Amino acid sequence: MNQKRLKTLLQSLKMGKTTVEEALEALKHYPFEAIEGAHIDHHRSLRKGFPEVIYGEGKSAAQIGKIMEAMARQGENILVTRLDAGKATAVRKKFPKAVFYPDARVLTLLPNPLPPRGRGTVLVVCAGTSDIPVAEEARITAEVLGNPVATLYDVGVAGLHRLLSQHKTLTQAAVIIVVAGMEGALPSVVGGLVDKPVVAVPTSVGYGASFGGISALLAMLNSCASGVGVVNIDNGFGAAFLATLINRL
Amino acid sequence: MNQKRLKTLLQSLKMGKTTVEEALEALKHYPFEAIEGAHIDHHRSLRKGFPEVIYGEGKSAAQIGKIMEAMARQGENILVTRLDAGKATAVRKKFPKAVFYPDARVLTLLPNPLPPRGRGTVLVVCAGTSDIPVAEEARITAEVLGNPVATLYDVGVAGLHRLLSQHKTLTQAAVIIVVAGMEGALPSVVGGLVDKPVVAVPTSVGYGASFGGISALLAMLNSCASGVGVVNIDNGFGAAFLATLINRL
Amino acid sequence: MNQKRLKTLLQSLKMGKTTVEEALEALKHYPFEAIEGAHIDHHRSLRKGFPEVIYGEGKSAAQIGKIMEAMARQGENILVTRLDAGKATAVRKKFPKAVFYPDARVLTLLPNPLPPRGRGTVLVVCAGTSDIPVAEEARITAEVLGNPVATLYDVGVAGLHRLLSQHKTLTQAAVIIVVAGMEGALPSVVGGLVDKPVVAVPTSVGYGASFGGISALLAMLNSCASGVGVVNIDNGFGAAFLATLINRL
Amino acid sequence: MNQKRLKTLLQSLKMGKTTVEEALEALKHYPFEAIEGAHIDHHRSLRKGFPEVIYGEGKSAAQIGKIMEAMARQGENILVTRLDAGKATAVRKKFPKAVFYPDARVLTLLPNPLPPRGRGTVLVVCAGTSDIPVAEEARITAEVLGNPVATLYDVGVAGLHRLLSQHKTLTQAAVIIVVAGMEGALPSVVGGLVDKPVVAVPTSVGYGASFGGISALLAMLNSCASGVGVVNIDNGFGAAFLATLINRL
Amino acid sequence: MNQKRLKTLLQSLKMGKTTVEEALEALKHYPFEAIEGAHIDHHRSLRKGFPEVIYGEGKSAAQIGKIMEAMARQGENILVTRLDAGKATAVRKKFPKAVFYPDARVLTLLPNPLPPRGRGTVLVVCAGTSDIPVAEEARITAEVLGNPVATLYDVGVAGLHRLLSQHKTLTQAAVIIVVAGMEGALPSVVGGLVDKPVVAVPTSVGYGASFGGISALLAMLNSCASGVGVVNIDNGFGAAFLATLINRL
Amino acid sequence: MNQKRLKTLLQSLKMGKTTVEEALEALKHYPFEAIEGAHIDHHRSLRKGFPEVIYGEGKSAAQIGKIMEAMARQGENILVTRLDAGKATAVRKKFPKAVFYPDARVLTLLPNPLPPRGRGTVLVVCAGTSDIPVAEEARITAEVLGNPVATLYDVGVAGLHRLLSQHKTLTQAAVIIVVAGMEGALPSVVGGLVDKPVVAVPTSVGYGASFGGISALLAMLNSCASGVGVVNIDNGFGAAFLATLINRL
Amino acid sequence: MNQKRLKTLLQSLKMGKTTVEEALEALKHYPFEAIEGAHIDHHRSLRKGFPEVIYGEGKSAAQIGKIMEAMARQGENILVTRLDAGKATAVRKKFPKAVFYPDARVLTLLPNPLPPRGRGTVLVVCAGTSDIPVAEEARITAEVLGNPVATLYDVGVAGLHRLLSQHKTLTQAAVIIVVAGMEGALPSVVGGLVDKPVVAVPTSVGYGASFGGISALLAMLNSCASGVGVVNIDNGFGAAFLATLINRL
Amino acid sequence: MNQKRLKTLLQSLKMGKTTVEEALEALKHYPFEAIEGAHIDHHRSLRKGFPEVIYGEGKSAAQIGKIMEAMARQGENILVTRLDAGKATAVRKKFPKAVFYPDARVLTLLPNPLPPRGRGTVLVVCAGTSDIPVAEEARITAEVLGNPVATLYDVGVAGLHRLLSQHKTLTQAAVIIVVAGMEGALPSVVGGLVDKPVVAVPTSVGYGASFGGISALLAMLNSCASGVGVVNIDNGFGAAFLATLINRL
Repeated sequence: MNQKRLKTLLQSLKMGKTTVEEALEALKHYPFEAIEGAHIDHHRSLRKGFPEVIYGEGKSAAQIGKIMEAMARQGENILVTRLDAGKATAVRKKFPKAVFYPDARVLTLLPNPLPPRGRGTVLVVCAGTSDIPVAEEARITAEVLGNPVATLYDVGVAGLHRLLSQHKTLTQAAVIIVVAGMEGALPSVVGGLVDKPVVAVPTSVGYGASFGGISALLAMLNSCASGVGVVNIDNGFGAAFLATLINRL
Repeated sequence: MNQKRLKTLLQSLKMGKTTVEEALEALKHYPFEAIEGAHIDHHRSLRKGFPEVIYGEGKSAAQIGKIMEAMARQGENILVTRLDAGKATAVRKKFPKAVFYPDARVLTLLPNPLPPRGRGTVLVVCAGTSDIPVAEEARITAEVLGNPVATLYDVGVAGLHRLLSQHKTLTQAAVIIVVAGMEGALPSVVGGLVDKPVVAVPTSVGYGASFGGISALLAMLNSCASGVGVVNIDNGFGAAFLATLINRL
Repeated sequence: MNQKRLKTLLQSLKMGKTTVEEALEALKHYPFEAIEGAHIDHHRSLRKGFPEVIYGEGKSAAQIGKIMEAMARQGENILVTRLDAGKATAVRKKFPKAVFYPDARVLTLLPNPLPPRGRGTVLVVCAGTSDIPVAEEARITAEVLGNPVATLYDVGVAGLHRLLSQHKTLTQAAVIIVVAGMEGALPSVVGGLVDKPVVAVPTSVGYGASFGGISALLAMLNSCASGVGVVNIDNGFGAAFLATLINRL
Repeated sequence: MNQKRLKTLLQSLKMGKTTVEEALEALKHYPFEAIEGAHIDHHRSLRKGFPEVIYGEGKSAAQIGKIMEAMARQGENILVTRLDAGKATAVRKKFPKAVFYPDARVLTLLPNPLPPRGRGTVLVVCAGTSDIPVAEEARITAEVLGNPVATLYDVGVAGLHRLLSQHKTLTQAAVIIVVAGMEGALPSVVGGLVDKPVVAVPTSVGYGASFGGISALLAMLNSCASGVGVVNIDNGFGAAFLATLINRL
Repeated sequence: MNQKRLKTLLQSLKMGKTTVEEALEALKHYPFEAIEGAHIDHHRSLRKGFPEVIYGEGKSAAQIGKIMEAMARQGENILVTRLDAGKATAVRKKFPKAVFYPDARVLTLLPNPLPPRGRGTVLVVCAGTSDIPVAEEARITAEVLGNPVATLYDVGVAGLHRLLSQHKTLTQAAVIIVVAGMEGALPSVVGGLVDKPVVAVPTSVGYGASFGGISALLAMLNSCASGVGVVNIDNGFGAAFLATLINRL
Repeated sequence: MNQKRLKTLLQSLKMGKTTVEEALEALKHYPFEAIEGAHIDHHRSLRKGFPEVIYGEGKSAAQIGKIMEAMARQGENILVTRLDAGKATAVRKKFPKAVFYPDARVLTLLPNPLPPRGRGTVLVVCAGTSDIPVAEEARITAEVLGNPVATLYDVGVAGLHRLLSQHKTLTQAAVIIVVAGMEGALPSVVGGLVDKPVVAVPTSVGYGASFGGISALLAMLNSCASGVGVVNIDNGFGAAFLATLINRL
Repeated sequence: MNQKRLKTLLQSLKMGKTTVEEALEALKHYPFEAIEGAHIDHHRSLRKGFPEVIYGEGKSAAQIGKIMEAMARQGENILVTRLDAGKATAVRKKFPKAVFYPDARVLTLLPNPLPPRGRGTVLVVCAGTSDIPVAEEARITAEVLGNPVATLYDVGVAGLHRLLSQHKTLTQAAVIIVVAGMEGALPSVVGGLVDKPVVAVPTSVGYGASFGGISALLAMLNSCASGVGVVNIDNGFGAAFLATLINRL
Repeated sequence: MNQKRLKTLLQSLKMGKTTVEEALEALKHYPFEAIEGAHIDHHRSLRKGFPEVIYGEGKSAAQIGKIMEAMARQGENILVTRLDAGKATAVRKKFPKAVFYPDARVLTLLPNPLPPRGRGTVLVVCAGTSDIPVAEEARITAEVLGNPVATLYDVGVAGLHRLLSQHKTLTQAAVIIVVAGMEGALPSVVGGLVDKPVVAVPTSVGYGASFGGISALLAMLNSCASGVGVVNIDNGFGAAFLATLINRL
């Protein structure tokens, strides 16, 4: 039962065409039906102009193109993640205005880019050059979600001087996304240098006993620095989404 | 080389008793030494009046008492976590003003409680009655850290009506801490109902294939709802600390 | 907004004291609120006379006694699982009519036992004598849930003759619960002998590479016999509950 | 010793050509030999007209074709699972009447389709669009096994309104197959809304800490909702087979 | 239908009181029933005088005593494994002739000890002094099963000279049981020095990354020496049983 | 120092050209040097005519050809395992007398085949058709090692009648190799039917929670039937080698 | 603030253009900034002439070429690890003087090779021929880092005589790198024969329960021989680097 | 055949009482026998005055006392590790000169303490106060092994200033033992600050996803800093032993 039918029912009741008992009976299934659509508006405030997100992995270029077409018709901003270069080329033939970031494997189509807002800057930090693709997925997502974004790349814990010399940048951010593979120690170090929320992203960078990111993931969950929240391995998008929710409070 | 010695050096230089070359040489090790104390002031703004935290597990009542004594002498607020009832009784003989929360296994001694502040309410949600000890550790920590706190307990996903009927409470919170063991599904459901940051705490509640909380931990890391950051198993304290950093932005 | 208030609203609308617009506004939060209580009646048909279940692990005898008191006042059947002998003795001092099954670690208090119903017999099979506690938890649960129950114990796959000689019992059951630890092979063998649903329960029986039941659990999930559904390690109660749902279809 | 030889022996005994001792000796190995064929008729009632099943993974198109030929000669219904598109094309050249479902990677050849029967509808529910292939394997299997089938796709727990608005469909099913990857929370939620058996199928959908479906599998085994039986990761076929056994009781 | 009833049936048939058809019908369930008892005589040749085995873990002294009483009445040899000293004392009060081996946690009661037989000597080798309890369980089991047994203890791979200087003992054995914890390397080394079957027993000896014997277990399964069969962690009894079967061929 | 130089030294001593002290000094390093070659003759008795084994995985056809050439020149029997069809074709161009078994991925070149010997028959049993490649690796290896070999394929535990009807074959074997994937239950069942050593081979057959053979491996290590020794996953060769050592005792 | 600006500041202070207070304020951020560059000279002594290292995995030939060009311009020695043959060919077109080691997947370009130095020889030992690629990565790295290097390959524990006969080589080394896959037992054996530091490198050589090197890794961590330090799976480079640090003390 | 008998044989040969052939025959088993004792002198140089080590875990006070008595009679230095306070008290009644370190759970009895030697200082660093017991086991071991030792405790990565301010101490050490639990990041940071070998010791400190030290262990194996060798979890003794071997080169 949608809003229109509910209104009709109430009018009918008011006009005496329906008894109270009939109306109560008719409303029996209403809560479950009504819950669809009108009343769960979660993320709505966030979503104003927010790009729709397509997870590209496991979808063909054709499938992606089809979904984008429907969205584009309504003038929506679009963000495609986990998209390899081959598919991106195919997609961009249809949507020449789309921008592809090969490192981040992200494609954007932003007819109405969001103006920067939020309480401060989202800083994206990563440990090694191999972590950059995940860091870039976070950076681009955070930007299209409307955050001012800064980056600090290749500042792993085995060369602390690079991180420490950027102390000012660290302390000026509102939220810090820290991306690291291998031993995943960077969020602990960053978390110890600042008093801001740290969103930690383990990456699958490494070999042998890195076990595809498990090593980094465990390190981050066991961080001796308080104030660190962890997302899934390689989940740059999710980190940026969480950072945006934090930055928009 | 501390600030005082640095000042003396500069004065000596100014007065011509020291050459520029001698001063440069004297400053050679300064960066490492100076970094101690004065310049890493992380968490300081947060810490004003903030309780010092003692992790009670594996420490004897005598050891805890000793640490508390030193802190108490300086009038600091104190929070002891993971403290069992036996030790608490012993500690409270020395510190009769300390308050012990047996469910949460937390003890507080707060000569100067923090006044509530932050952008909004920290809401602590938990799935089952067995998760309450961890939820309470989060609640009490969040309160002594100065947040307005609300709770919603025993609203697990197998009885959705309990959660849904509290929809208003959910949407009014600034940050939501979600505590769950077993299948750890609650953060996904909550994350889908609100557009606020969710801090997920897996608990070791369960048996068999719950593997001491691994099952819940994995579920939370794989949450299909965006905006969820995960902390270590049973880490109610850490969740509250992260929520406080977010709430204070 | 409960049913009564809804009725008042509709009457008020009917009598012209409320406009349609006012009624629509008043119903805005109704779906979420109404979902509590009245409309999620799951398990209700099953629950008629069905015992309330208390998970005894981690609860004190006092806590359990308190919960039982509230239930007993309303004349409900009660089933307590995972209860050790010490607590049981304490509980039975308060409730002398309660029956304790030490093997199964189960206590029942059944003022109004359910009469047997369901499409057929629930057969509980177990591999070794060490699996009997879990099998008994399943048997007693299935009985108090109102199923005709039969058992076939100590018929492990290393002595197939014991199982095969009971072929008739197997083929006459409506649902079969198979309980096994160690290599957990029994559900595959039973599933190959019958064309009835098999509910497999791995147990933590074993040592070394049995890893507390993981070995049996994996074996059951990989059963080469179709028609096997698996529940958590040592979860005799859950198996009986599922078997009851199947038997009552 | 087959039935015919047994009869001859008994006749010979009756006619005095064989002594009782000779007959006893001759019957010494009979139990093991006789057990083949005649007396293990498991699944026979189910199998009347039931398709033979070929697991396509790891078999070449040629091998599959050969097996199908032998079956087709006897007019049997055939179901091939885990068949990729390339092999399907090759197979269908030989069997033009075969139907291939690319999403489900299933091929059917049904000269004598089973008429729908069973106590009710088997409902197949899945969490995300990536889970659809496994859900479709379950749906098609359930259909060719002769069940009335309904589906409810893309109703994951992060958007509960979609699931709740279909409450009626859920409560009307006899058995519910719930397919989910990532955090695998859907069976718990569905199990909490209905009082029917739930067959849970974890899928390998996800990345990072989903560990190829382990995360979803563990969540389902730890479901806080009773009445859930779990099958192997991605095992849509097995879920449908179990659901059929339940529906046919 | 047991042997006696079968004989009666055949006699009845012979005497014309029963028709062939009636006899066939009566024999319909015979294979499954007959399989019990008479026809699965596995381990029978081995078992002549062989001790009955009781797994002591998780059984009370009273339970063990009861089982032993029943066995002892029939003059059987008895072997109890995994028995701690406390229970052993209690058991020996009832059975003063029983012998308890505290290291091996094994108790024997052998009214009719088996005379040594088998093709050769079973040699039990262990790596460190901490592995001796498991080695002793193997040694005593092998002895009561009637094998000539020799031992070579504390010859771990970090001190190869101890093992190599006993080269002759190694080459003279018929079967070698090798017991080792920690890195579990000894079976590979022994397997490389002899051309006899090696039964490898990982032990739970070690700490940290020994993971309760997993490390040793994996090493043995990956042995670069051919001719090594592995049993469960700490399973000295099982190793001796397998060695006996090999030695008796 | 080899045998020749040792002899020269002793002769020199005898002839008075060397003192006893000089000889002792010269012999100081002798034990380590002498251990090479002459004194470790393990497997020698076994190896008479025994094929040399080449593990084909990860070696190119050219590398394998080169190794074979060297061996062939000395008239040795050769066994290549884990060889895919492509490489086999290349190898057989050089060695047209070599025989390739595509299922087993094994190639043999046997100028002097071993005559059958050993105490009895090695029986190779496997659970499903997908396990046949590993079973065939075991069968061919056992044959070229000179054992009489029999096979019993596709007798998995979900269809016990197939196994039981072959009871006689089982009881007549000297050693039984049991190959199974998925739940790995077959060795337990076979071990319960016979009193002969069982060599269990888990296979990587299965999907999802079979975890590449871990499930089957664990089941076999936890076998409730005594007398089972386990080898590595898919290690058909190793099982046959161990069975040969047992059969030759 | 770099060294130059610091000097200017001090001179300005000396000349009276700056007050002490102004200088102190200006030096406030100095420690963090100064830490970059000048004061963390770790590995500097080691690095004199030391090759720069490029991890080739996951980098394209073009990317590698670009990095090498920048380095080559400054006359630096270069070491590329984890480089496959295809990329190596492409790289060598640009740098014809570069040397590629296909087994080790290592490429070197050494305009100024380091002269051998260090306290003694670094000995690289490996268990099987399949471990040679990792051993070679270690050997070449150790050589280009300026160590005298010796090797002892294919001396696995299943053929101890090969290792023992080289006892002298073992005892003469200053540091021993031991490379092994499968059961990873070699470091324990070597560690027991010498009194020198052993750097253990597990390799991913093996199949089934070797789990990509986990089995070897665990064995090495649990080594019963003291004096063994372990590096990551397949990390030949890291082992050589650690051995160099030890050898240069 | 020991040295004495060898000498007699050679004299007999020299005197013509034995032929060369007889001597050769007599020497046939000599290599294996001779290898015992005289010729494997590993660790001998190290062991001069070196304490004998007793692993206290799992040994009773009586057993330890007995072993110590035998050693003490020969005037040896003794080191007992993993000894709890209760046993220590009992042991010290017998050996009043023994010193017990309750934190480290180490007991020493040093009639002839080793004078400090080695190329430099062994520095023991630990992350948190809970890691101190393991660090102390390392410190005391390193001292009784004769190294100059320094310590740097409670310098975890979440408070880098404490570590950095001790930069000089770090750079002056010859070998650094780094002890850390939880996320185990400290060895990476230390390894990046110095050019000395780092011996990393993961500890079981932590809870939840620290998995008894696995998290720290994995982090250390994946260290992005080169020059780090890892020992088993909580193995302070082993780290000190390895450091001693390195320091004595």
